[in-house]
Amino acid sequence: MDIEAFFAAKLDSLHNEGRYRVFADLERRKGDFPRAIRYANGTRSEVTVWCSNDYLGMGQHPPVIAAMHEALDRCGAGAGGTRNISGTNHYHVLLEHELADLHGKQAALLFTSGYVSNWTTLGTLGAHLPGAVIFSDQNNHASIIEGIRHSKVEKRIWRHNDPKDLDRLLSEYGREAPKIVAFESVYSMDGDIAPIKEICDVADKHGALTYLDEVHAVGMYGPRGGGLAEREGLMDRITIIEGTLGKAFGVVGGYIAGSAALCDFIRSFASGLIFTTSLPPHVAAGALAAVRHLKGSNAERELHRDRVASVRGRLERIGIPYLPNLSHIVPVMVGDPVKCKWISDTMLDSYRIYVQPINYPTVPRKSERLRITPSPLHSDADIDHLVGALSDLWSRCALARAVA
Amino acid sequence: MDIEAFFAAKLDSLHNEGRYRVFADLERRKGDFPRAIRYANGTRSEVTVWCSNDYLGMGQHPPVIAAMHEALDRCGAGAGGTRNISGTNHYHVLLEHELADLHGKQAALLFTSGYVSNWTTLGTLGAHLPGAVIFSDQNNHASIIEGIRHSKVEKRIWRHNDPKDLDRLLSEYGREAPKIVAFESVYSMDGDIAPIKEICDVADKHGALTYLDEVHAVGMYGPRGGGLAEREGLMDRITIIEGTLGKAFGVVGGYIAGSAALCDFIRSFASGLIFTTSLPPHVAAGALAAVRHLKGSNAERELHRDRVASVRGRLERIGIPYLPNLSHIVPVMVGDPVKCKWISDTMLDSYRIYVQPINYPTVPRKSERLRITPSPLHSDADIDHLVGALSDLWSRCALARAVA
Ligand SMILES: Cc1ncc(COP(=O)(O)O)c(C=O)c1O
Ligand SMILES: Cc1ncc(COP(=O)(O)O)c(C=O)c1O
Repeated sequence: MDIEAFFAAKLDSLHNEGRYRVFADLERRKGDFPRAIRYANGTRSEVTVWCSNDYLGMGQHPPVIAAMHEALDRCGAGAGGTRNISGTNHYHVLLEHELADLHGKQAALLFTSGYVSNWTTLGTLGAHLPGAVIFSDQNNHASIIEGIRHSKVEKRIWRHNDPKDLDRLLSEYGREAPKIVAFESVYSMDGDIAPIKEICDVADKHGALTYLDEVHAVGMYGPRGGGLAEREGLMDRITIIEGTLGKAFGVVGGYIAGSAALCDFIRSFASGLIFTTSLPPHVAAGALAAVRHLKGSNAERELHRDRVASVRGRLERIGIPYLPNLSHIVPVMVGDPVKCKWISDTMLDSYRIYVQPINYPTVPRKSERLRITPSPLHSDADIDHLVGALSDLWSRCALARAVA
Repeated sequence: MDIEAFFAAKLDSLHNEGRYRVFADLERRKGDFPRAIRYANGTRSEVTVWCSNDYLGMGQHPPVIAAMHEALDRCGAGAGGTRNISGTNHYHVLLEHELADLHGKQAALLFTSGYVSNWTTLGTLGAHLPGAVIFSDQNNHASIIEGIRHSKVEKRIWRHNDPKDLDRLLSEYGREAPKIVAFESVYSMDGDIAPIKEICDVADKHGALTYLDEVHAVGMYGPRGGGLAEREGLMDRITIIEGTLGKAFGVVGGYIAGSAALCDFIRSFASGLIFTTSLPPHVAAGALAAVRHLKGSNAERELHRDRVASVRGRLERIGIPYLPNLSHIVPVMVGDPVKCKWISDTMLDSYRIYVQPINYPTVPRKSERLRITPSPLHSDADIDHLVGALSDLWSRCALARAVA
């Protein structure tokens, strides 16, 4: 078999469908977010980033940076081992306590990413719980899907955000079978929010455990940034809360929070936790500073909500269609992969605005979009400039406007 | 089902078998490696670490630390997105070029860890190559095994380091079927080295691709630290070289190096790369500094070899049995999980020496061991102290000595 030809053909098909991905080569600038330097064709130019998941700008928050500098000087560059073999650092221990407290749980467990935390936790539970069934929301993230797939457990998919459909599926199983209901609080591409209480009610009725991915909600919602389950007063209804340190907390890494026995079990049996170098100590120190800050400060969250509302209001006024939702994500719908990429390219080249086009398979075909993520650091002038650019390009692309 | 009781029972069985893991709570100290602070029972004490995979002490190398401070101040704490959505930083691009060059390949691709690079790359190849078969060395690392398992591809296991057995298995398949031979250069627990040339000869004979995990060899072997394939002049015989940035390079992260089309294919189709926040820019900057330094300097590698030889010589003189091998890993064999843990605990408490016991499932039962990893920074006095402690405890445990 000619493997190079095989790869080339696969890549050609992406080009032909207009969904070959080119990664924008950026240099983030601390203190200047959402501004970044873009490297292209041997030149550097300044752009404004409108698609970062550093939602609150914590990636440049002075106490976070200071904590990282300090820990880097104290502990060095890396952990030097897996968690079990010399790679547990005191910052990991402190961060796990902090995260357990954030979610009102007995314990928490760090992973190298949110992806790995989902994949490993669901994979390990699915593989070890005899006769388990995992009930997965239809729109769950790739890392949840892969974890379930990996465990080879029985999987049932329920209609997105539909507790009735979940109820129907759960009813097919006896009370004894271990059942896990896996879902997200904020779905990142549509920005819609799960009916957490109703889902917990259905899970309780059938004696199922609940697994909630709060990756796009931690730091962002709830009086202490504990996520939507905190805001809704439902943290104790969730068996396992999963989160990331790489979005609102601005650094990198992932975690779960739950009972002490659960975390100890995953810690002891999970391949994806045992057999990998742990997060650098200074990364844990930075995340610790971010979590602590957002526990005590609502200022970032309030300013962020204000900016999101402002972007939406401005889009409405000029009829640029966006998907309405109750979260902080503003999906501007284009519905065509080639136009979506053209708008994105033109915004970058002619307006110095960077919004990555989101195409299949990240979203369904014909729902291609620009996923706009305002931050507390986008100014009114930035919003003006973004909305102006979209208005121009909408006309040039002959895309329909929403009726106001 | 009472899930808490289930977890408790699983944990009890680990306790009963003497293989429940307690993570040592350490604080690494930059500038003072291999010394660290150990937190236990509310006290802090200094210990000497003898089981780190920061093999060369690059985790405290001044130019590495300086590069990280600088990039942290320039770019902030995190990447702020996935590689595709605002999370590609110029440091990632530079590091990928550097790694491609290190391995004499057209391209390289970063992942969040070595674990994820193995799991994702093999998982993606296995799932996409129609009719593929993966031939996996019997002792391959968990991340390789899980990647293959995940892809649901056909898998054949060949006897450890045995090209004849590989030849026999490959002969069962026609030339057309896509075949991948997956193996490691240095096996981390026994420290033995693969017959890379013979394996490549067999793979070539059958038209199979080769996938080589050099996680414990990059930075350590070869005139530029390109690993064992570099040392043996075999890099061009390997289709895909996989490595980590978290061991000899001292930071965290993983990668593959191979043809441009291969890396572009994995980049475009791999869930574990697409759907996760990328490494923080300053982490890439630190790894870049470490790779560049070890490309140009043999001093660390030479001193390291000297220290390894010295430890082995001293162990031999007092008859402490270790597994002989041609790498840098010194497995001191105990062969009993309870004694192994007792020796480790006593070394920590009474001698302030930290060597984590390695028990099942990381190694087979009855081959429980202390895996000792000397570094260029262990002094003669450190070696004296280690060997003295082992000698005492060997006698107290009534363990057999090797005949000199
Ligand atoms: C819903 C969801 N879960 C998990 C993840 C993975 O988190 P991380 O980026 O920390 O790997 C993501 C995105 O990256 C996500 O959108
Ligand atoms: C052979 C081998 N491959 C891969 C890995 C994973 O690398 P990382 O620690 O960067 O995840 C390890 C150990 O951790 C290993 O021993």
